[in-house]
Amino acid sequence: MAKTKVVVTRQLIDEAQKLLDAKKEELEIIQWQSEKPCDRSWLLENAKGASGILVMLTDKVDEELLQAAGSQLKTIASFSVGTDHVDREALKKRSIRLGYTPTCLTDAVADLTVMLILMAQRRGGECIAKVTRGEWPQMPWHPLLMTGPQIRGSTIGFLGFGRIAQASLQRLLPFGIKRVIYLTSKPGQPVKDDHFNLLKNPAITIEPAISAEQLAQESDVVIVGCALTPETKHLISTDFFAQMKKLAVIVNIARGPIIDTDALVKALDQGAIFGAGLDVIENEPNITADHPILKQPRAVLVPHIGSATIETREQMATESVKNLLAGLEGGRMINELEL
Amino acid sequence: MAKTKVVVTRQLIDEAQKLLDAKKEELEIIQWQSEKPCDRSWLLENAKGASGILVMLTDKVDEELLQAAGSQLKTIASFSVGTDHVDREALKKRSIRLGYTPTCLTDAVADLTVMLILMAQRRGGECIAKVTRGEWPQMPWHPLLMTGPQIRGSTIGFLGFGRIAQASLQRLLPFGIKRVIYLTSKPGQPVKDDHFNLLKNPAITIEPAISAEQLAQESDVVIVGCALTPETKHLISTDFFAQMKKLAVIVNIARGPIIDTDALVKALDQGAIFGAGLDVIENEPNITADHPILKQPRAVLVPHIGSATIETREQMATESVKNLLAGLEGGRMINELEL
Repeated sequence: MAKTKVVVTRQLIDEAQKLLDAKKEELEIIQWQSEKPCDRSWLLENAKGASGILVMLTDKVDEELLQAAGSQLKTIASFSVGTDHVDREALKKRSIRLGYTPTCLTDAVADLTVMLILMAQRRGGECIAKVTRGEWPQMPWHPLLMTGPQIRGSTIGFLGFGRIAQASLQRLLPFGIKRVIYLTSKPGQPVKDDHFNLLKNPAITIEPAISAEQLAQESDVVIVGCALTPETKHLISTDFFAQMKKLAVIVNIARGPIIDTDALVKALDQGAIFGAGLDVIENEPNITADHPILKQPRAVLVPHIGSATIETREQMATESVKNLLAGLEGGRMINELEL
Repeated sequence: MAKTKVVVTRQLIDEAQKLLDAKKEELEIIQWQSEKPCDRSWLLENAKGASGILVMLTDKVDEELLQAAGSQLKTIASFSVGTDHVDREALKKRSIRLGYTPTCLTDAVADLTVMLILMAQRRGGECIAKVTRGEWPQMPWHPLLMTGPQIRGSTIGFLGFGRIAQASLQRLLPFGIKRVIYLTSKPGQPVKDDHFNLLKNPAITIEPAISAEQLAQESDVVIVGCALTPETKHLISTDFFAQMKKLAVIVNIARGPIIDTDALVKALDQGAIFGAGLDVIENEPNITADHPILKQPRAVLVPHIGSATIETREQMATESVKNLLAGLEGGRMINELEL
């Protein structure tokens, strides 16, 4: 009997690769070998006859791929949190299951959120740039030299208040924050999910905001942590910045297009806000050295490293393989997207 | 009757300046006007006849100044945490009181400690540099791209375990750290001061280390937070780095010379440790663009901004003025150094 064929568009990390290799007796495993992203034509060619495909964010799963694979295809396992690269309708009509890895990166992203808040408040990017350019010897000490606002006593405003936002809040509590407001798709309504037992009997006030305007006006730190939808695209734009406090900072750990970059650059330029910490930005990764955000000393931009810890990526890889195997065997995936 | 004369070597921040100005009826206030550090010859000239002098870190308080002032001098109020710039013996023999501002910067430094740990683990400096150089478009995604170690599950090793170290620990607990060890001048002995009620019935193990070797071997994050003394100078050198874990990071928020910079550069260069986050460094601020630490992508260096928050500096200024006035009036200072 022919082995069941699977295609994997990456070499995987240690434990995940072992888990896959352990199935070599039962599976014909076709795996992309290079360190570069998988070549599309290679994928289309090799998908033919596959029962399962393990893909990365960079691999489009669309009609073309599904047709190339053929009707025996049972499952897609995506090594990713987002599934924008997958045509869910196309899977649904063929009853192909979709696994993904949304939960294991909470710690990594929440840690980065705290880093970006502190970098924005404490002028981290500006500090590093000055020192690197050799300017430290010419920075005579004075009482307000390189000072920024302190987080103790702050009101933290969350745009979106899901698992990652709540994990960030958990980390921020011992910094002495004073109050939390959050805006969700249901303004004014308390969120239902209390992921880390922070919302019952909290030591500080934690309450829903009634509008984006309130979030902008009252927050010392705005954390963008919501999904990108037609409603949230450019939700943070000129009007929002105009309402913000001059000493407030904004952090985006969600998706670039939620913030209107032009409006952000203008707000920083005019001193309407104090600083920004960005893990994501519109049109990433096509950010060239002449991009206007890079001219703003008070903006810190890192290249979408939210989930970039060794531990998280190992876990994502392992979960992807487990989802793939579960999809082939008709078993339960660790995370399966309802189609 | 002549007014009591005081000399102040800086313009102060809002509230502090008001507090000082409110005493204009009683005091003759001579104040340095420029944004640059106070000129030494101006200080020596104006100190003559002063009963109190409010100084900055940049103003040496020595025999020369005390003689220039004269025997009526009763008090020095230093706008600083450290008092290395003050000849304490010279004050003592004249019974001149010394005020300083050591306590109000705990939050600001502890916040920065967390920022530097995360920057070192998550390759923040390297990330910012790559994006700024316009390299993001040429960074094809792969599972271990720009990954660093995650803080959850870490053992945190403190060199020195005073108020700032404990405030840092308080912030780190919700990041899911697993264990804390600390080395003080009394190896193996538990510290007495429990500044934030963390040490009684802690949720994780918190215990004294018996040696620098143990601290190096067992820590995933080493935080240098001790005083600089002949014993701690270059305590962190080649031997220490050789014992550290390859994925460990080191953070210095104390004084530069505790770490041997040459040894640190070598350790980073050879991959003996993962990264470093430095608020201080030997020979600061004379760090020119060709300094070898600036060539290390995994080292983050900021220009001694530990206490650089607006709130902290305002409080330091206000406390300095209060210490000055208390010194003149024979009252109780907020913080007085026992001479």
